[in-house]
Amino acid sequence: MEPFLRDRWGNPSSIYDFGRRERKAIDRARHSVAGLLNAAPKEIVFTGGGTESSNTAFNCALNVGDRRPHLILTSVEHSCGLRAAEYYERRGHRVSQLSVGSDGSLDLDELESLLAEDTGLVSVMWANNETGILFPVEPIARSCRQRGIPCHSDAVQAAGKIPIDVCSAGLDYLSLSGHKLYAPKGVGALYVRTGAPWQSFILGGTQENGRRGGTCNVASIVALGAAADLAQKRMVESEAKDRRLRDRLEEGLLSLPSVYRNGMADNRLFNTAYLAFEGVESEALVLLLEKEGICVSSGSACMAGSTEPSHVLTAMNVPRSRALGSVRFSLGRTSTDRDVARVLEVLPQQLERLRNSVASRNPR
Amino acid sequence: MEPFLRDRWGNPSSIYDFGRRERKAIDRARHSVAGLLNAAPKEIVFTGGGTESSNTAFNCALNVGDRRPHLILTSVEHSCGLRAAEYYERRGHRVSQLSVGSDGSLDLDELESLLAEDTGLVSVMWANNETGILFPVEPIARSCRQRGIPCHSDAVQAAGKIPIDVCSAGLDYLSLSGHKLYAPKGVGALYVRTGAPWQSFILGGTQENGRRGGTCNVASIVALGAAADLAQKRMVESEAKDRRLRDRLEEGLLSLPSVYRNGMADNRLFNTAYLAFEGVESEALVLLLEKEGICVSSGSACMAGSTEPSHVLTAMNVPRSRALGSVRFSLGRTSTDRDVARVLEVLPQQLERLRNSVASRNPR
Repeated sequence: MEPFLRDRWGNPSSIYDFGRRERKAIDRARHSVAGLLNAAPKEIVFTGGGTESSNTAFNCALNVGDRRPHLILTSVEHSCGLRAAEYYERRGHRVSQLSVGSDGSLDLDELESLLAEDTGLVSVMWANNETGILFPVEPIARSCRQRGIPCHSDAVQAAGKIPIDVCSAGLDYLSLSGHKLYAPKGVGALYVRTGAPWQSFILGGTQENGRRGGTCNVASIVALGAAADLAQKRMVESEAKDRRLRDRLEEGLLSLPSVYRNGMADNRLFNTAYLAFEGVESEALVLLLEKEGICVSSGSACMAGSTEPSHVLTAMNVPRSRALGSVRFSLGRTSTDRDVARVLEVLPQQLERLRNSVASRNPR
Repeated sequence: MEPFLRDRWGNPSSIYDFGRRERKAIDRARHSVAGLLNAAPKEIVFTGGGTESSNTAFNCALNVGDRRPHLILTSVEHSCGLRAAEYYERRGHRVSQLSVGSDGSLDLDELESLLAEDTGLVSVMWANNETGILFPVEPIARSCRQRGIPCHSDAVQAAGKIPIDVCSAGLDYLSLSGHKLYAPKGVGALYVRTGAPWQSFILGGTQENGRRGGTCNVASIVALGAAADLAQKRMVESEAKDRRLRDRLEEGLLSLPSVYRNGMADNRLFNTAYLAFEGVESEALVLLLEKEGICVSSGSACMAGSTEPSHVLTAMNVPRSRALGSVRFSLGRTSTDRDVARVLEVLPQQLERLRNSVASRNPR
């Protein structure tokens, strides 16, 4: 992306050559992102991020075309889905939330029973952003397609990590975000099936083939394209490495007293370990680990600062004491065996320290 | 912005320190952008660009609060204002367009006569993006304020070039864009007066003090802050240099046969020369000049590719033959006396070449 920040700052909407080269670079990036999803390049619209992508898909399905007012989404969607659902509910839309089991899984029969004449959109994450659990998007999309109901998947957490084929899934919309696949923050993409209703919030010039106004974020779009290429090329080896590291990490931590896995062991992203450390506050553990150079997360960054237990764990009926002590470990391209060894060395000490301090504050 | 792309890629929404530093950097940038506009930092919301900013202001005023359905804007707004107006008109809003005179100026009496009980928003550019002509935003905002009507100004073209004081203007909303003040593309800001209605399209996490979801575009926001600081610091000297160069350029070109200035000579941005070369197609002139290393624009990049005359020139009643031959010259931080001399050397030759070729194709 560097040349596009330094020298090649032409506006791709200009008619002169200084902009034409930038336009070509954007076309290449569009081709790369399309390749990652098995979409056609013209089905990719670049956006300002995953949240805009997901919000736009809701807008396309609920405010254009048939405008059927019923929205179905899972109770464990990212906040961009849940906040949008609240918004539409306040404006008179009917919203149904699909529940999840204690293992984090969806019940397809429940979905079938909710699909109705007036259903205007079904939105189901490809992988949950806290547990990493994979949802059966393909059969869901098939079911929707048979009934002519638009279907969107928030694939922000999954895109670039596991194979995604929007064609065989039969989706109408799919969202992804740059920074989740090593592109910068502030860029994303929305897959829009050819023929699916379209209405962006961003109205202005004829950028993005007339589908989204606003000067194109050339450098970040180029970076997203390069990131998509790299993700595709390294997918198999990344999975092998990170799954091995994650399993080793998880095994080590689960052998400690009163540590539990949130959700099922299989059928989830290979890079995520979401563990409950009963009896401690996750935020305290996050801060202690950070002092040791270990960055982990309590729930989702987009929900950080909340003292309530994660809505995902609440939906899974995880006991409050476990939910409040839950920490998410995410492995990635730079994670090594040494990193895992270091966590397994440091965390048990900090955990004991925290538990002792809690015990001394709350004597029986 | 570089450190935030290379090493400091922490998520500012994280609770750990790796994100806290990024949060601080965003706060600093917010302070800088607020300083450029004489706003309070908490009145600045970072967006994905000027178009999103402007569209959001329309949404805040027309879809929240009193929801009065009447929208007034000038007939020469940027496409982001005009396309949004069309969108609201299709949804039952009443839209009034303020006309401009042949010199490009607004008629304040016309505005007064349009203001009505049901007016929900008045939107007037600070400076027009083609002619550079400055509009009397301050008296307009004052008039709106007296009647309790929200007022927005698209200051994308003006911000960073001339002093803007949102407080003394009494505006409710003001939009700006990063790449117009030497920050990268894909970032912008919206000033929102404390207490003014607020509703972003981008619904998700609690970023931007809960006012806009989506992971913050840290690097670009930092760049926008730095650009705002630099613009403020260099404003006086930039104006002096670019006004001198622009006047020299304009004087030289206006001395050629059948070349005219679009709009008035005074009361416009100091860096813009928008000239009509009668008898040539602007696009042909743009392409010939580019071969000589001179990048100029026919109208607006956001409208490029259109073969219709610019809507701005049409609104000004510029004859079609002049409108189709209009070229915009924009000077900026890197423009020099040598650049101007080169244009004055090259352009007359190319102009004559084009006029001769047109004449030989269309013999009398």
